[in-house]
Amino acid sequence: MNELEYIGYAAGFITTLALLPQAIKVIRSKQTRDISLLWIVFMIIGIFLWLCYGYANESLPMTIANAVTLLLLTVILLFKLRFK
Amino acid sequence: MNELEYIGYAAGFITTLALLPQAIKVIRSKQTRDISLLWIVFMIIGIFLWLCYGYANESLPMTIANAVTLLLLTVILLFKLRFK
Repeated sequence: MNELEYIGYAAGFITTLALLPQAIKVIRSKQTRDISLLWIVFMIIGIFLWLCYGYANESLPMTIANAVTLLLLTVILLFKLRFK
Repeated sequence: MNELEYIGYAAGFITTLALLPQAIKVIRSKQTRDISLLWIVFMIIGIFLWLCYGYANESLPMTIANAVTLLLLTVILLFKLRFK
């Protein structure tokens, strides 16, 4: 693995983990007013496509990262729909 | 370009555009309470790394998509810091 690959893995790891504090904040506060529903919906569609792309390319890191992101986005969506 | 590449481009396009309604919502409402500062900061670091990765791989779509995302995240960060 060359240096560039490490940057890619770090980027994927950080952008995936980024959603964790957002999901925790939503779960704790039950407040979602300032979060755009369109952002959540577009992200779920886009990340689902990334998941298919990673899976089809047999990229385990992409598949895992996007599956985790999809899970966190689904939690945020459920809270957005339940607690407006 | 095969079908899989189209899925990748669609995924990149949708996840990039997803931030637009979130940025517009923040600019209009000046309300950022429910948005996690940690999410913004981690995303800026991660997307900056993706930008470097795309640029180093001479991928124009990745470079443009991540540059746009970085710009939108910076707007959201400025509003988050200014209007708590």
